[in-house]
Amino acid sequence: MEDLRAAVDNELDRFLSVRRAKIPESADLINEIARLVAAGGKRLRPSFCYWGYRAGGGPHCEEIVRAAASLELLHTFAIVHDDIMDDSDERRGEPTAHVRYGLGFALLVGDLALVLADELFINAGFAPEVMMLAFAAYSLMRQEVIAGQHLDVQNANRLEISEEEARRIAVLKSGRYSIEKPLVIGGYLAGASADFIAGVSRFGDPLGEAFQLRDDLLGVFGDRAAIGKPVDSDIREGKRNVLFASTARLLAGDDRDFFLGRWGGSELNVREIEQLRGLIERSGARAEVERLLGDCRRAADENLARLSLTPDARSALADLAHQATHREI
Amino acid sequence: MEDLRAAVDNELDRFLSVRRAKIPESADLINEIARLVAAGGKRLRPSFCYWGYRAGGGPHCEEIVRAAASLELLHTFAIVHDDIMDDSDERRGEPTAHVRYGLGFALLVGDLALVLADELFINAGFAPEVMMLAFAAYSLMRQEVIAGQHLDVQNANRLEISEEEARRIAVLKSGRYSIEKPLVIGGYLAGASADFIAGVSRFGDPLGEAFQLRDDLLGVFGDRAAIGKPVDSDIREGKRNVLFASTARLLAGDDRDFFLGRWGGSELNVREIEQLRGLIERSGARAEVERLLGDCRRAADENLARLSLTPDARSALADLAHQATHREI
Repeated sequence: MEDLRAAVDNELDRFLSVRRAKIPESADLINEIARLVAAGGKRLRPSFCYWGYRAGGGPHCEEIVRAAASLELLHTFAIVHDDIMDDSDERRGEPTAHVRYGLGFALLVGDLALVLADELFINAGFAPEVMMLAFAAYSLMRQEVIAGQHLDVQNANRLEISEEEARRIAVLKSGRYSIEKPLVIGGYLAGASADFIAGVSRFGDPLGEAFQLRDDLLGVFGDRAAIGKPVDSDIREGKRNVLFASTARLLAGDDRDFFLGRWGGSELNVREIEQLRGLIERSGARAEVERLLGDCRRAADENLARLSLTPDARSALADLAHQATHREI
Repeated sequence: MEDLRAAVDNELDRFLSVRRAKIPESADLINEIARLVAAGGKRLRPSFCYWGYRAGGGPHCEEIVRAAASLELLHTFAIVHDDIMDDSDERRGEPTAHVRYGLGFALLVGDLALVLADELFINAGFAPEVMMLAFAAYSLMRQEVIAGQHLDVQNANRLEISEEEARRIAVLKSGRYSIEKPLVIGGYLAGASADFIAGVSRFGDPLGEAFQLRDDLLGVFGDRAAIGKPVDSDIREGKRNVLFASTARLLAGDDRDFFLGRWGGSELNVREIEQLRGLIERSGARAEVERLLGDCRRAADENLARLSLTPDARSALADLAHQATHREI
């Protein structure tokens, strides 16, 4: 895993240097992309793509490292534009791009990261026919993450949202894009069978949802060092996630009014943040979301067991599943 | 030309409907893309792409209409994000996306238009090997337009800018992306020779610059109906274009101080706008830019004459060149 991470990072360095030399006028933008990439992240998406490929029967090669690395650039696009939309101040423990350099600059950093991601992906070195198939999944993934983000922005001011809606947003915005699609793209690049693609997708989908639920729990109950931004940011932003929807359903009376009234309040004090956390806990929503997370994990494990894999690939995918849902991402 | 426009518009309708059905959650975003596309524009970029293809020896077919249409979606991305960065209120005679629906929504509309443009382009139906070559030019074009926009944002607050710098921005931000690259992409899709590609690029580059100079002149001296936004918007935004750079060099003393001090001023009144226009005229900058535009046009015409073409292609490219530099775009 550490070797893969280093290989992905080397590839990103190399690629960004080449692009910087090609269009010197974009150097400032590329430097900011490089800074954001270096600031952290566990290269989760590249890892799932790489192991989707290996699991699908592909041999280790530079081409798959390049294709996998492109997903980190795509993620850079997503977080930069996401932070603009949410007006977030911090990411990975550092000031966000728009806070540092202004809206126009951050917007272009995101645009360029998106464009460079495609470039790296498409020119990774696979046979054109293989690439066209993989690109279809890649492109659908980009559309899903944008649609998910749109629902998220749209729901930001709605007082109520069903758990079903919240789960759909989580799947589109995060689960598919972080886990399921990277696995599937890896499978296509390996030239794997339609059966394998369907099977690895059945492993990735519930795992992706578990990953997002874990993120929601960390966003309220995690610690600052682990998530790289203030732990109360989901509460202050008033995220309409499953944890919120579940709590809203379980509470009644004054507790419910307080919860709906203060969630996402702009001037919450520390005591109120603690009260909101307490309500999520006492309502049973935290336990419910943890149970749902466990169910998703089990479904993923069962579907992983059904795949016919080399011992290497099986153990790597099991490790990644653990990382994505048990550790701080 | 009218037939081509209708074919491009049909293709855009068809494609956007398919994508809307595929991810219903993105319907609002896609509707806004469709509204912006329908609001106007002469399909200049698709036309250059189509005729670059025909000139390169490609036969009329649906595939090239699809590929050409994708450039209109890419342009939609560019104008939506551009309008956010410039904080423009109007485009094509209608309120801009961020003014209508807010920053987050407009940002996602631009992101989705960029992603859908790639999708339509790559899946236009060409042989994978041909597409990979054309995509390299397409991708470089995307990077150039972002780099040009970055220089534009960066220079927005600089008091002085050389004509050389202003010309470089114009080439990156507009000329290549509007004319030269569409022609070259068409050439690649036709499987044309390296000689043809180089030749059509020598026609497109000066024509692209002439197009941008025309746009700069219209942005100060054009009439409202023709450009679809207030005619003083370039002056109020303080565009650092060639017209500005040339005027700044030609003026001296109080006139120069007034010009530099008020260009881009936030609360300009009608009399001041007229004074600024008068200075561009009296300094000789308008005449100089018109001369430069004429030089670029002549260079383009000469390089068009050097290309070996069918009569159809020659006459279509000559018409497009005229449209791009003599009429209101």
